[in-house]
Amino acid sequence: MLQDQNNSTICAQATALGQSAIAVIRVSGPRTFEIVSKVFASRKGRRLEDMKGFTLCYGALHKEDGTMLDDALLSVFRSPASYTGEDMAEISCHASPYIVSELLRALVAYGCEYAAPGEFTRRAFVNGKMDLAQAEAVADIIASETEASHKIAINQLKGGFSKELAAMREQLLHIVSLMELELDFSEEDVEFADRSELRSLLGKASAHIGELISSFKLGNAIKNGVPVAIVGATNTGKSTLLNALLGEDRAIVSSIAGTTRDTIEDTMNVGGILFRFIDTAGIRRTMETIEIAGIERTYYKIKQASIVMLVLDYTRQDDFEESVRNLIVNLGGGDQRVIILLNKIDEKPVVVTNLFEGRAPESITPEENINKVCDIISGIAAANNLTPLAILPISAKKKIGLDELRNLLTHSQQDVSIGTESVLVANLRHYTALKEASDSLLKATVALDERRPADLISQDIREALYSIGTIVGEISTSEILENIFSKFCIGK
Amino acid sequence: MLQDQNNSTICAQATALGQSAIAVIRVSGPRTFEIVSKVFASRKGRRLEDMKGFTLCYGALHKEDGTMLDDALLSVFRSPASYTGEDMAEISCHASPYIVSELLRALVAYGCEYAAPGEFTRRAFVNGKMDLAQAEAVADIIASETEASHKIAINQLKGGFSKELAAMREQLLHIVSLMELELDFSEEDVEFADRSELRSLLGKASAHIGELISSFKLGNAIKNGVPVAIVGATNTGKSTLLNALLGEDRAIVSSIAGTTRDTIEDTMNVGGILFRFIDTAGIRRTMETIEIAGIERTYYKIKQASIVMLVLDYTRQDDFEESVRNLIVNLGGGDQRVIILLNKIDEKPVVVTNLFEGRAPESITPEENINKVCDIISGIAAANNLTPLAILPISAKKKIGLDELRNLLTHSQQDVSIGTESVLVANLRHYTALKEASDSLLKATVALDERRPADLISQDIREALYSIGTIVGEISTSEILENIFSKFCIGK
Repeated sequence: MLQDQNNSTICAQATALGQSAIAVIRVSGPRTFEIVSKVFASRKGRRLEDMKGFTLCYGALHKEDGTMLDDALLSVFRSPASYTGEDMAEISCHASPYIVSELLRALVAYGCEYAAPGEFTRRAFVNGKMDLAQAEAVADIIASETEASHKIAINQLKGGFSKELAAMREQLLHIVSLMELELDFSEEDVEFADRSELRSLLGKASAHIGELISSFKLGNAIKNGVPVAIVGATNTGKSTLLNALLGEDRAIVSSIAGTTRDTIEDTMNVGGILFRFIDTAGIRRTMETIEIAGIERTYYKIKQASIVMLVLDYTRQDDFEESVRNLIVNLGGGDQRVIILLNKIDEKPVVVTNLFEGRAPESITPEENINKVCDIISGIAAANNLTPLAILPISAKKKIGLDELRNLLTHSQQDVSIGTESVLVANLRHYTALKEASDSLLKATVALDERRPADLISQDIREALYSIGTIVGEISTSEILENIFSKFCIGK
Repeated sequence: MLQDQNNSTICAQATALGQSAIAVIRVSGPRTFEIVSKVFASRKGRRLEDMKGFTLCYGALHKEDGTMLDDALLSVFRSPASYTGEDMAEISCHASPYIVSELLRALVAYGCEYAAPGEFTRRAFVNGKMDLAQAEAVADIIASETEASHKIAINQLKGGFSKELAAMREQLLHIVSLMELELDFSEEDVEFADRSELRSLLGKASAHIGELISSFKLGNAIKNGVPVAIVGATNTGKSTLLNALLGEDRAIVSSIAGTTRDTIEDTMNVGGILFRFIDTAGIRRTMETIEIAGIERTYYKIKQASIVMLVLDYTRQDDFEESVRNLIVNLGGGDQRVIILLNKIDEKPVVVTNLFEGRAPESITPEENINKVCDIISGIAAANNLTPLAILPISAKKKIGLDELRNLLTHSQQDVSIGTESVLVANLRHYTALKEASDSLLKATVALDERRPADLISQDIREALYSIGTIVGEISTSEILENIFSKFCIGK
């Protein structure tokens, strides 16, 4: 394992920015108490050096010129019993931007360095307080917006994922040791390891990794949101629908800046499940060349989505057939579920006279007409081999049918609710490492079947072990760590 | 003093909202440890009941259904050694909105109440941990944006202001006791108190209060910003100037929603002093009736300002005379300082040919021309008995001359820098109470001069004592407390 050689003492605000009752400034490193004693004085005249770990002290903060900055509470942690494993102090003061900036300035003047993002957790990892997967869980816990994503992260922090990986490593190490025992006696051409037993062990390990890999689709959906594409011809009300869905719940909505102006993504917690709504560019019959790029991205988004919501315009029934066909072409044979929304049902009903033969148009109620139109859509879908999850009449503008739509979305994702102890892979880095491990094991299995030499098979398994090792950080490089911790917030 | 009868246990997030490393949830009240022990379990199996005050404990947070919510650190405070004076706990967990909301929900489910704004500090006041002026200082400390406003608030928190008031109360109580001694012997018509000595004591107390009252202008400017009105004819570039001044420092700028669309106020820290810039409606020659209201508000803002910046348009020299006259009319005889800004000097210079007699227009440099125009403005100002602090050529658009303007603003407020121990009144409630006390003392002085009976004089002084008592909260009502603490943030 790589050991960071860093003896600096770092400081950062650990609480969110902004005016509030209190702010917490963290200090960690060998000079913690020497530096903090220069800005903080106990009210009772106690010396910081004499204070035990896990105790609090009330006192005053001073600037370098001796003027009082604030009242403060100091939490003392002594190495190794701290978050980072180093000597640590947490200064709890009033959350005034002025006080916090002056305090940090004074700490730095006395010898602290500003902490880099995630540097406290990085030190915790380097000092063996947690493995890399647990460190990554810290960032995931903070970012969790739903119960399900929080559960995955907490389980990972508690070490559930790490335990699975440890069990797998043990299995693989067992196989390797059997193989390598043979190598020691290679000249005698002995086979200590029963090839069929090895085959079975390898198969079990591969199956285990395969399970973790296949949990990624669900884990990723839980962490980043179940992708829902909103498609349909232009002016069918796609954006209005997105706004109507998000509008009532804006407080817990986060906007993701799209890479193009063609798709807008917004996540929303619906019934405890995070959905990622993707508003796609409308597909028009005639298109300028310049629009083609946008439309291609739309098709790409449709292929990636778990759910596709096709929006049809109640007042433009001539477009139904083409809209459905356009969709079919672009589903790309994936396992997306389709919901057809018949929008604008609040607008003037277009009576489909030939379906109400023999009845006067004025005798037909709006409801009857809407039902008939849904039947027509159902027919078009069937003719195109499309089995939608539902055909829902709605009005995005008047907010009719939106509750039904929300229920439908939640029910379509029943499998997303997970047990407390489930281990799901939700991190792309872990997923990639597991895929690499899986590939190595596949190579080992093939080599075994082809009765290749033990050292070659052993090498493949060692590669799988290496890949798994990168997940918990038994194998790590500065680059890997940099990449992981730079995404953390400051102060963590 | 009013005693709140409140035995509830309250909870609230004390740190700013938003994702960050850690959040702190505060709990205070008699059931603190009973309730917290239901959501928090020590890792080492320690019982909360056994933990001493001012100690920390590492453990895990659980929801009601037993699922783990987070790792957490618990700070324990035992009554009366806590901020509120009650039993208190601070739970430091990961600052995920999901965790924080679930934790608060669980605490409330087990019997906590959500804390009202400022309720922790209100309890601190009720339990005698601080007086009312100190409690108000807590809110001021959090809101402080500059060193000067922070100094006033810290001094008030440390009790500097309270000490001044206590000294004054003692003076007044001494006078009252002398007066009231006479009352006991009133039938004998004795005068224990030497009238001239009483007169001198009253004079001293009045002078003391007078000093505090007159410190309010400075204190208020430090706390709320030195008001700077930006005036001038339409399209002279007032808003561009405001944006240019604020633009480079947006991070520490706060917008105050104006009550009308006619004035926009923004505060900015310039050289450690807070300025409140007021962009006024342009004053035009011809106006619709509907605009009159806006213009009147502009005049009102000019009267209130400490500094008035008159913006003139270099390309429209015909307007100078009228702009200056318009300003003069509306200064209202106050002590505003005026800065004249000659804006748009980057634009095509309008050569003032009659001032460069005998020289070819193309031989005149832009600088020469700008200087000449400044001379003309100086002449117009003198003719109108206006002595501006400076006439500065600038370009708001090209950001020319803005540093000079900032320096000028800072230098104009040298008296704003205050000593560490200065007591300044910065709170409108305190100012009003001191004014009332001053009025009562004036009445007492008049009564003394007119040789009115001792009980009448004594009554006036008692009224002054009452007014002063409301400041530190020796006299307080629910309404006063409600009014003060409702302006606090939640969790303080």
